[in-house]
Amino acid sequence: MIDLDSNATTRLAPEVMDAMLPWLRDQHANPSGAYGAAKRARQAIEQARSQVAELLGARPEEIVFTSGGTESVNAALHSLHTLTGEGEILVSAIEHSAVLRFVDALPRQTRRLGVDAGGRVELDEMREASGGAAFISLMAANNEVGTIQPLNEAIAIAREAGIPIHSDATQAIGKIPFTIEDHPADLISLSAHKFHGPKGIGALYVRQGLDFKPLLHGGGQEKGRRSGTENTAAIVAMGVAAELARRELENDLSQRLGQLRDRFEEQVLESLTGVQRNGSLQHRLPNTSHLSFKGCEAEGLIILLDEFGVQCSAGSACMTGKREPSHVQMAMGIDPATAKSSLRFSFSRLNAQQDADDAAKALVRAVEKLRGIQGSGTGPVVIYGS
Amino acid sequence: MIDLDSNATTRLAPEVMDAMLPWLRDQHANPSGAYGAAKRARQAIEQARSQVAELLGARPEEIVFTSGGTESVNAALHSLHTLTGEGEILVSAIEHSAVLRFVDALPRQTRRLGVDAGGRVELDEMREASGGAAFISLMAANNEVGTIQPLNEAIAIAREAGIPIHSDATQAIGKIPFTIEDHPADLISLSAHKFHGPKGIGALYVRQGLDFKPLLHGGGQEKGRRSGTENTAAIVAMGVAAELARRELENDLSQRLGQLRDRFEEQVLESLTGVQRNGSLQHRLPNTSHLSFKGCEAEGLIILLDEFGVQCSAGSACMTGKREPSHVQMAMGIDPATAKSSLRFSFSRLNAQQDADDAAKALVRAVEKLRGIQGSGTGPVVIYGS
Repeated sequence: MIDLDSNATTRLAPEVMDAMLPWLRDQHANPSGAYGAAKRARQAIEQARSQVAELLGARPEEIVFTSGGTESVNAALHSLHTLTGEGEILVSAIEHSAVLRFVDALPRQTRRLGVDAGGRVELDEMREASGGAAFISLMAANNEVGTIQPLNEAIAIAREAGIPIHSDATQAIGKIPFTIEDHPADLISLSAHKFHGPKGIGALYVRQGLDFKPLLHGGGQEKGRRSGTENTAAIVAMGVAAELARRELENDLSQRLGQLRDRFEEQVLESLTGVQRNGSLQHRLPNTSHLSFKGCEAEGLIILLDEFGVQCSAGSACMTGKREPSHVQMAMGIDPATAKSSLRFSFSRLNAQQDADDAAKALVRAVEKLRGIQGSGTGPVVIYGS
Repeated sequence: MIDLDSNATTRLAPEVMDAMLPWLRDQHANPSGAYGAAKRARQAIEQARSQVAELLGARPEEIVFTSGGTESVNAALHSLHTLTGEGEILVSAIEHSAVLRFVDALPRQTRRLGVDAGGRVELDEMREASGGAAFISLMAANNEVGTIQPLNEAIAIAREAGIPIHSDATQAIGKIPFTIEDHPADLISLSAHKFHGPKGIGALYVRQGLDFKPLLHGGGQEKGRRSGTENTAAIVAMGVAAELARRELENDLSQRLGQLRDRFEEQVLESLTGVQRNGSLQHRLPNTSHLSFKGCEAEGLIILLDEFGVQCSAGSACMTGKREPSHVQMAMGIDPATAKSSLRFSFSRLNAQQDADDAAKALVRAVEKLRGIQGSGTGPVVIYGS
């Protein structure tokens, strides 16, 4: 199988697996214990914390381990909500559901800021709304279309308004260089399984000196910022994955991903008509290609592509199976029929050039087959609820 | 090393490890995907859900996977808090910190119900307080001293008062038979790493028909009850661990654990004076021995025992390193000096008879050595803050 669904999740790097195994197999001590084996587990956790910190250019004590991206995002927003006074929450309309649904469940108003046709948040709207707002949450890059947000401009707006800002950088970290120095947000969420680490482990960067109220309460692990027995094996694995990501990024990972993606897109665009690329071409994750295929339902394409040996997504994996067109594409002004004909192809460093070539061929074959069956018009247009 | 710290965490069963590996190594698809590999991950998750449900005698759809015991407990209490009207929360004074600290952070009054000298909650006090209370949370068995609580009496009190009840059964499940039929609480928390599953995965039983408000919001996984990319490998592992636990319990696991523990205690009590067993001897987890050693500081004993090849805890692992005497022992009326001289030894089915014998010998040696150094009186009594 050719895995072009790396924005959904990535394969564990072999080095990560190797580092993880001893902590699963033999070294199972609870890191909170008072004996030697427990102390060794604590040391391994602290090494992983340093590795994650180094990827971000942060201090180790600014890194809190969580159970994944969703918990990191929820914890960041919970803390900001708890600690800030009156005022709206400002988010982009194309945030991940971990942001949108969490703030929707809060007893506080949220303003969803519009995006342009390329999927970049409207900064004028943000600036105007920032007076009297409580805090901002803006993703670093969108999970579906891959659009990189003007995060630094948003950080400047937050600074000017004197309010804190969180960034869900789950999709950016490990794909493009992303450091605290370059993007000095107050809170930053990340997830290991987006960069060849395991599922079930993530981290939250909490800027030194920032007040923080935990979402999970209990044994007081992570210096009271995230209770629960530390998942040593997964934490160690995230550390190694972060270290690998840092090295790969220093070794032109972004360029390599971009070459794979561009090679794939070029072949598809040369061979097919009625293909639309979505999202800003200028500000786009190098690994992500979001394409609409006139006259094709995305779900049929995914099934055919799976048959032809290629894995990809319609919208985000988290929203698959839900019948509504993507809120991201809606906010970008893409019409529902086009949205329902869109696929996301997302590459990782474990893909080879041959994968790009083979996937392009398979895609052309699938689209042509589906168009042959469905005709060249779009299928029946269904009106979906909000 | 002889691991007698199984209430802190347990070694992964080899069968669990074997079941987990393929989902870490090769089958990494995001279970929310639309292709075949994702569907296979979903099926594996549903099988694990059935296995966990079967351990509890519950329906699969009543099981929600979480990141562990702390999240399960926090999620249960969050939901109950969100959905119930005015009134106090009733908890025992010896709940795990995942309960106590979570309710302490809520904008609502909590009443900590006293316990008797054996560590059993005062039912009269509970009954009296139940009129007008919002809900009850009572652990099934205490993590430190192993005391099994009168859960069914508490469930009856909750029923009579018309309020819901949650039970943190993290320490009971996998050690003693524990089913929904026998203990029909509304919400029940459990954690895989307490019964030879991995860390970072737990479950929450939510009685069918009970309203539930999630703690984590996002992609809507677990039927909207717990968002976040499913940790397939850990979920599969928890399923196998649950299946093994069910079979072991059917095969007299509790009796076998009790024999190990009793063999250990007999030898210790025969060889040493000034040893006090804490917790109800009648209502006690079969694997747990909580002992106070006159004239010995627990921390010194742990270090010596580690040297002699035995791992154990002072109080709960989650509280190790904190200088206050255990809130559990304080609530039971154990004086601070005795509390600070207490150790918890907790067995698992991976311990052999020889472990019990060797550990008893090592313990006798350690206590005698420490008493030789420190004299027969207790060390300096320090008054600790609350």
